Amino acid sequence: MKAAVLHAYDPTLTAKNFVSYETYPDPVIEKPTDVIVRIGGAGVCRTDLHIVEGIWRSKVDIALPYIMGHENAGWVEAVGSAVTSVAPGDAVICHPLVTSGHCLACRRGNDMHAVDASFPGINANGGYAELLLTGERTLIKLPKGLSPKAVAPYTDAGLTAYRAAKKASRHLLPGQFAVIVGVGGLGHIGIQVLKAMCAAEIIAIDRSDIALELAKECGADHVIKSTDKDVEEILAMTNGNGAEAVIDFVAEGDAVAKGLAMTRNDGFYYIVGYGGKVDIPTIDMIFSEKTIVGNLVGTYPELVELMALADRGIVKLATREYRLADADQALHDLHAGTIKGRAVLIP
Amino acid sequence: MKAAVLHAYDPTLTAKNFVSYETYPDPVIEKPTDVIVRIGGAGVCRTDLHIVEGIWRSKVDIALPYIMGHENAGWVEAVGSAVTSVAPGDAVICHPLVTSGHCLACRRGNDMHAVDASFPGINANGGYAELLLTGERTLIKLPKGLSPKAVAPYTDAGLTAYRAAKKASRHLLPGQFAVIVGVGGLGHIGIQVLKAMCAAEIIAIDRSDIALELAKECGADHVIKSTDKDVEEILAMTNGNGAEAVIDFVAEGDAVAKGLAMTRNDGFYYIVGYGGKVDIPTIDMIFSEKTIVGNLVGTYPELVELMALADRGIVKLATREYRLADADQALHDLHAGTIKGRAVLIP
Amino acid sequence: MKAAVLHAYDPTLTAKNFVSYETYPDPVIEKPTDVIVRIGGAGVCRTDLHIVEGIWRSKVDIALPYIMGHENAGWVEAVGSAVTSVAPGDAVICHPLVTSGHCLACRRGNDMHAVDASFPGINANGGYAELLLTGERTLIKLPKGLSPKAVAPYTDAGLTAYRAAKKASRHLLPGQFAVIVGVGGLGHIGIQVLKAMCAAEIIAIDRSDIALELAKECGADHVIKSTDKDVEEILAMTNGNGAEAVIDFVAEGDAVAKGLAMTRNDGFYYIVGYGGKVDIPTIDMIFSEKTIVGNLVGTYPELVELMALADRGIVKLATREYRLADADQALHDLHAGTIKGRAVLIP
Amino acid sequence: MKAAVLHAYDPTLTAKNFVSYETYPDPVIEKPTDVIVRIGGAGVCRTDLHIVEGIWRSKVDIALPYIMGHENAGWVEAVGSAVTSVAPGDAVICHPLVTSGHCLACRRGNDMHAVDASFPGINANGGYAELLLTGERTLIKLPKGLSPKAVAPYTDAGLTAYRAAKKASRHLLPGQFAVIVGVGGLGHIGIQVLKAMCAAEIIAIDRSDIALELAKECGADHVIKSTDKDVEEILAMTNGNGAEAVIDFVAEGDAVAKGLAMTRNDGFYYIVGYGGKVDIPTIDMIFSEKTIVGNLVGTYPELVELMALADRGIVKLATREYRLADADQALHDLHAGTIKGRAVLIP
Repeated sequence: MKAAVLHAYDPTLTAKNFVSYETYPDPVIEKPTDVIVRIGGAGVCRTDLHIVEGIWRSKVDIALPYIMGHENAGWVEAVGSAVTSVAPGDAVICHPLVTSGHCLACRRGNDMHAVDASFPGINANGGYAELLLTGERTLIKLPKGLSPKAVAPYTDAGLTAYRAAKKASRHLLPGQFAVIVGVGGLGHIGIQVLKAMCAAEIIAIDRSDIALELAKECGADHVIKSTDKDVEEILAMTNGNGAEAVIDFVAEGDAVAKGLAMTRNDGFYYIVGYGGKVDIPTIDMIFSEKTIVGNLVGTYPELVELMALADRGIVKLATREYRLADADQALHDLHAGTIKGRAVLIP
Repeated sequence: MKAAVLHAYDPTLTAKNFVSYETYPDPVIEKPTDVIVRIGGAGVCRTDLHIVEGIWRSKVDIALPYIMGHENAGWVEAVGSAVTSVAPGDAVICHPLVTSGHCLACRRGNDMHAVDASFPGINANGGYAELLLTGERTLIKLPKGLSPKAVAPYTDAGLTAYRAAKKASRHLLPGQFAVIVGVGGLGHIGIQVLKAMCAAEIIAIDRSDIALELAKECGADHVIKSTDKDVEEILAMTNGNGAEAVIDFVAEGDAVAKGLAMTRNDGFYYIVGYGGKVDIPTIDMIFSEKTIVGNLVGTYPELVELMALADRGIVKLATREYRLADADQALHDLHAGTIKGRAVLIP
Repeated sequence: MKAAVLHAYDPTLTAKNFVSYETYPDPVIEKPTDVIVRIGGAGVCRTDLHIVEGIWRSKVDIALPYIMGHENAGWVEAVGSAVTSVAPGDAVICHPLVTSGHCLACRRGNDMHAVDASFPGINANGGYAELLLTGERTLIKLPKGLSPKAVAPYTDAGLTAYRAAKKASRHLLPGQFAVIVGVGGLGHIGIQVLKAMCAAEIIAIDRSDIALELAKECGADHVIKSTDKDVEEILAMTNGNGAEAVIDFVAEGDAVAKGLAMTRNDGFYYIVGYGGKVDIPTIDMIFSEKTIVGNLVGTYPELVELMALADRGIVKLATREYRLADADQALHDLHAGTIKGRAVLIP
Repeated sequence: MKAAVLHAYDPTLTAKNFVSYETYPDPVIEKPTDVIVRIGGAGVCRTDLHIVEGIWRSKVDIALPYIMGHENAGWVEAVGSAVTSVAPGDAVICHPLVTSGHCLACRRGNDMHAVDASFPGINANGGYAELLLTGERTLIKLPKGLSPKAVAPYTDAGLTAYRAAKKASRHLLPGQFAVIVGVGGLGHIGIQVLKAMCAAEIIAIDRSDIALELAKECGADHVIKSTDKDVEEILAMTNGNGAEAVIDFVAEGDAVAKGLAMTRNDGFYYIVGYGGKVDIPTIDMIFSEKTIVGNLVGTYPELVELMALADRGIVKLATREYRLADADQALHDLHAGTIKGRAVLIP
């Protein structure tokens, strides 16, 4: 098959080519529950740039050459001997985590905390290719109205935003406030999900006017330009109390301290972004009785839920298509910040 | 003061006059927590016709002559010595239940289950009058955008629909279904609340085409004319499973059996209407693992939440204004079924 | 293999022999996820008598001759090609439902509502035999301290009681009351589970003094002999309010009406037994705002939880051992009411 | 009245006398909802030593001389004109926060987050005296079996431990683990509450062997001496995963980092103690999907629940009685660490 292959790390991201478009051995069915998917679209994620930088080397055991791509959708190409729920030809989207389904976390519907699992595109070959080896349990059949290339980025970017916003939506009540910090690829999905699933007033914060424009289109009730005064602005908008939920898609630099300061006493601060740190005295946690919540992608049922929203047009995702042969260009464009929406590679 | 007074029961509702517009003694502050409200609007409810019929005589200890009206809003006129949270002139809406706030139910925020409480318009003089005696704890100050006469019916009709729909909204997930049975004064609020607070697909059922038109305006995704086939239609729309939530605003005649049949296994059947009975073998409850939920008006905080929705225009209520002097006409029009929206009496 | 085989229905349960101990063809692995378990113990359940009566014929498609037994534990004997989580020799207990794990209910951890599933001992051959064909996903490896013959009845009787009591335990608070109606094979487990998982005061009701004695041993705080006055006694014990949770393991005859009458307003009535019917006006559901909850066995994770309780000695189950060859005697003894604890057949 | 009065701060806690036992003006009823309680017992809390040190000066606006004591119980002495729920002579325990009950937090049963409230013994005169001015809404009538002097410390130390342990108990399931860090005045109540309200295995950690002995008496399943190896020991006890809930009654020094390290992925870290800080990269919060929960005393209904546990003997509290005249001695003994159990001052 053809694939965009990573041959060497590039800590400074200055190389002319990050990946090489070339012929690579086809994956083969090994386990009875294996499925090979013919890729219809593979999302290009900032995490892929971090992989190129070599940042993930210490966390994940992988040998080069190797194929990135953890946001995948396509059509079933071949199935293992025990596979019963999909058949060749089915249009599918791939939950990012391959699990056996046997551990107690999976049995409780909490598959993101599976005891042993693989993550194609992170610790195994991914979807920057014509074919992807995955497991039966990752696959969701697509409704007719949704094509693989249109939905691929939902599997990680969309799902992560969905899960955090869903958690908040379940406790937010009319008359309460939610703040979305960072209206990028995840944040703009988070706004749409909140809008669909609760009636809290939504305040979006970003440094970019274009992002704030997008926030309004997605349903934000108020937008705030991120400045030194944004905490004060949030407090002023919320009767001096802060918001019952703050979902932080940035979570680096001063975003964390600000995010906690924007959170109302007895409220929830959801961390989705990363790069910064939580740094708060325990006495402040006690007096404020705030809750700080980590968020990790989302479960298979949550991806089903998100597909239902997408299928009904309630949540929309902007994508920009690249040919798989142009994967390198897509990565460079992402690095340069010139892509509007999510890049999707199409073999 | 002037009031529309009930002097005699009329079991057949055939009298020329149900109530008499006349002078009645002003209420007086008795307890330190008492408040007298100058009525800006009083909703006319079907329950009032049942009171005229004498149906409530067995349930409530009340002596005629007496003043009906349990959906009230207006302005604070006078306050008892312990009242601190409102002052004369404040525009307020009145939660229907007067409580001391001391029992454990109230302390847990569950005031509808207060141990001792009065219900003006049911077991004490109500708001078909210029002045109403109520308690401090019933009062919610109105946002500037809302006038008493526009919101009065939210206190019972609106609040009851809100509470049931809110309960359902908290467990309904994208990809699931909610059925609203009966799109009248309560049901059309229920649809708007569901739409605002979850992303389930909403199916509305009614016998009336006008009601179904209203359902669509309120946000129903599908409407079904109530017939012998409606259960089959619901099953067909829901992949043969039924809906995860059915909210029954009718709950009389065959509505209950149908409502339970429309409910998916592991789903919830919410009873709001009354007049019928639940009649189901325990073996069917076990195999289906359904849950049947009774619903009783709503709490004070829930009325605050509903006012937030109304203030933001997310929930709308159609009203038709009558002068208080025409209360009798309003009751007759309600009995005749010629009112579109909720009648509100204005002194 | 040897098995106790059902050859003919006996609607009056008057036959000398209900089942016949004889040689029967061994089960064979057919699907990659199949597992054959060598039975260590098979519980004898009242449902088995109902099967002999032919009551289940209308609900389940099964042809005689056939092997009953849906409460099974033993050792893995053989596994299909896709099985990875257990190996021959493992001591296991069998969740009663065989599922593929692919439907959304299973993916949410709610496997009792699997779209397609089989129930060995009900709609397929069960465990009154030396060998049982089941699926990988039913199996829980036993802790070393638990033997198959000691735990087999937990899979249905124990699990059903666990699930209902667990549901109640999650909302019951100190100062509140729980009523257990019927202290038999399920009820006495329900008491132990409630005692372990919440601090409500537990009141047990039964007609039998021996059962009430057992209730006390299991941790009931109060016991009441079931009479015409039991509702009044419960009300007297609960300040006139009734209990926040009533778990009805009888749910036939007047138990349902009484159970609902014992339930406090805003409380929960859990149905576990069957044979009777729920018959209550919708107006009473509204005024009382009670919730009626059906209960269906329990999930795989819940059986894991119950095994943890059993392993630590927090929940105990009385069993009486019979040789598999004496299955017929066990069924007759059960019919005669002469077994104390749960009969377990041991091949 | 007689009272133990604070006249001057002592930042080094080296003064011979911290408070002076003397005559002080009686409190008087000012507001219709005021109540004066004749103190039966007032708990002596480590916070009182911090007040003596002057640490709270920056947080709370109070002028000396002033009376400490925020854990109070006694008998109603006099009531304001609007008080209806208690009468002179009633034995009562005082929730520490005086609220009007009008804000939305109170109306939702979440009174610890009341918009305006006073805290006698912190920002108003407290219970180191014969008489205490409080509000009607703080008072819970004591069951006959409980005397004021025996229960006073429940109002803060007990209630804080109860609330945190209750939160954990509601999600902890059989087979899961809870760690209690610090088995002092709060921690030993926390163990008893967990034991009563869930079936998780409880592991207690402390530096003191005496504390660990107390932990066992209170129901801890395992105890661990706090050392450099305690995190490893917890991981070893929990299959390498950590505990689903860690309740940290220390939360200073390295306790916070260790507490988070002991918490299982997807688990909850509850902060009750203070003095340290939370310091964790956001990427670790995301990968682990942990939740960090602040805890602030407890609500009025929770104190009612705790009294129910105390009344039934399910939770026990060790106290050591001092005469009010010996308040200074009690404070010095507390500072010296020579009190076993909680000191209670008795006028």
